[in-house]
Amino acid sequence: MNITITGGSGFLGRKLAERLLGANELNREDGVSSAVENLILLDVTEPPEDLKNDPRVTILTGDITDRALLEKAIPKSTDSIFHLAAVVSAGAEEDFDLGMSVNLDATRNILEICRGNNTRPKVIFASSCAGFGGDMPEVIEDMTARTPQTSYGTQKVIGELLVNDYTRKGFIDGRALRFPTVVVRPGKPNKAASTFASSIIREPLQGEKAVCPVDPNSKMFLASPRSIIQNVVHAHNLTADDWGFSRETTLPGFTMSIGDMAEALRAIAGDTVANLIEWKPDPFIQKIVDGWPPEFNTQKSAELGFNRDESMEAVIQAFIEDELQGAAPGD
Amino acid sequence: MNITITGGSGFLGRKLAERLLGANELNREDGVSSAVENLILLDVTEPPEDLKNDPRVTILTGDITDRALLEKAIPKSTDSIFHLAAVVSAGAEEDFDLGMSVNLDATRNILEICRGNNTRPKVIFASSCAGFGGDMPEVIEDMTARTPQTSYGTQKVIGELLVNDYTRKGFIDGRALRFPTVVVRPGKPNKAASTFASSIIREPLQGEKAVCPVDPNSKMFLASPRSIIQNVVHAHNLTADDWGFSRETTLPGFTMSIGDMAEALRAIAGDTVANLIEWKPDPFIQKIVDGWPPEFNTQKSAELGFNRDESMEAVIQAFIEDELQGAAPGD
Repeated sequence: MNITITGGSGFLGRKLAERLLGANELNREDGVSSAVENLILLDVTEPPEDLKNDPRVTILTGDITDRALLEKAIPKSTDSIFHLAAVVSAGAEEDFDLGMSVNLDATRNILEICRGNNTRPKVIFASSCAGFGGDMPEVIEDMTARTPQTSYGTQKVIGELLVNDYTRKGFIDGRALRFPTVVVRPGKPNKAASTFASSIIREPLQGEKAVCPVDPNSKMFLASPRSIIQNVVHAHNLTADDWGFSRETTLPGFTMSIGDMAEALRAIAGDTVANLIEWKPDPFIQKIVDGWPPEFNTQKSAELGFNRDESMEAVIQAFIEDELQGAAPGD
Repeated sequence: MNITITGGSGFLGRKLAERLLGANELNREDGVSSAVENLILLDVTEPPEDLKNDPRVTILTGDITDRALLEKAIPKSTDSIFHLAAVVSAGAEEDFDLGMSVNLDATRNILEICRGNNTRPKVIFASSCAGFGGDMPEVIEDMTARTPQTSYGTQKVIGELLVNDYTRKGFIDGRALRFPTVVVRPGKPNKAASTFASSIIREPLQGEKAVCPVDPNSKMFLASPRSIIQNVVHAHNLTADDWGFSRETTLPGFTMSIGDMAEALRAIAGDTVANLIEWKPDPFIQKIVDGWPPEFNTQKSAELGFNRDESMEAVIQAFIEDELQGAAPGD
């Protein structure tokens, strides 16, 4: 199979690339699992060496708003595109034009290139629960209106709408997945307003302080990288009939207060580690986070067989295994 | 006040223009009703003579996808824009690119021009209940997800999202109104899939046959031109505080089967007139109409003081008064 991942050097893009290259998990249109023969990774930065050195991998480095580059990234032979590249929430809030061009225009260009290729590839679009916001019901259902309170959320909902309409028109075979906030991300903090949710676990586990800009009672809707990647592959392999009239779903997650996340860290790694969290309110971030509803009933995803994390403790253990070479704190 | 109407030669655009020129109904930002000093009408065709000859009116004829023309239509002095121009449902379904450029790109250009002017004008955006579709709950609530099943509906929902986000960012002062199907439209059938809903009243009242392409049991959510225009003005005059976190609402309407519409016509105009309706199913139109949910609970609009039609009989009587010079059939 010929696969393209946008945001292929990002943390989820890399994990997805490694998984797809390591196992024949993607189903072809006939439902048979098939090997990845060509994998194009498009991103502004290069991926790690192990991916670069794989003979099946082609690296395209540049700006996703460059249509010519996007056309190279999506040749006619493309079977499936995983569109993960985005300007994240605080980034799109700070630079409106950048958010519109990356999150909206580049997404539309991808869909248009697929349409022009006339090969109806699968397009798996990474959307976000940031599409929900404002005066929300207590629990968000699959059929709750999306009234986003950030430009990022707005752009993601528009992406979902386009993926649905391009699918309905037969231009692509799309699937739009609303990601919960992903914890624990490896690496450095990014421009997502939610970045602290990873920092407060990741940094203390490595002996570093982490600032938490929101109240410990703030609740978030969370999912681990492992469950996200598993669900992205699952979304790809579902059939058109599975999806029904709408090619979008909120991925399963779990709801937890920031204070309880810190307590899960304390249970696993002890007081010294957990006390490295510094609670320092930032009204700008608090306001954005308050706009994200924390409670979801992801019935559609449950019916479609998507995966849910067991517990915050399991998520932290998985982070230690996957990103810290299994080294428990203090080892 | 300086006002622009896109789609200013269309049936609703003309009615709105005449009303705004005839009475000082629009509130300025300070809440005081004020006279219209300059009215720019933008459309592909010219408006009727009475509008052209009004010294307050400037006619701009051309393509709304022409950005330079749009810039002329929205000078810095613009207080309020009524954005009614659109490629309607069956039109956008037949010509995907035309729908995207008129319904999406031109709307975005309007918002961008307002942003560039840096004067935060009011933008009243004509959206549509066609934004709802697919497997819907029995009754559509204000917080029901929009999962449109047409390109027109998709483009209108995207417009609502952009109007909301541009408002939240302080670029405009927006209001997006989801119109029910408007009956009875004067003039000729258009490319809207719903055009028959007017034809089956309008043509028989003028002694002509009309084809009804859908089953008499099909239900639709309807509103009259009078209530729509009244509500467009009302939407303009509501304050930002009135609107709350979301600048969109479904306008009040009434739900009725096509068969009952025909019976209302029969009650007013008699058998000879009502029997001019020819029932001739068209699966293409039926499928689109079946995708539009007929039952709405427009609680938000009720709370905001929007107007609702009394009955189909009243709507037909108003059409006879407004469009047929009050001449009852057979007169």
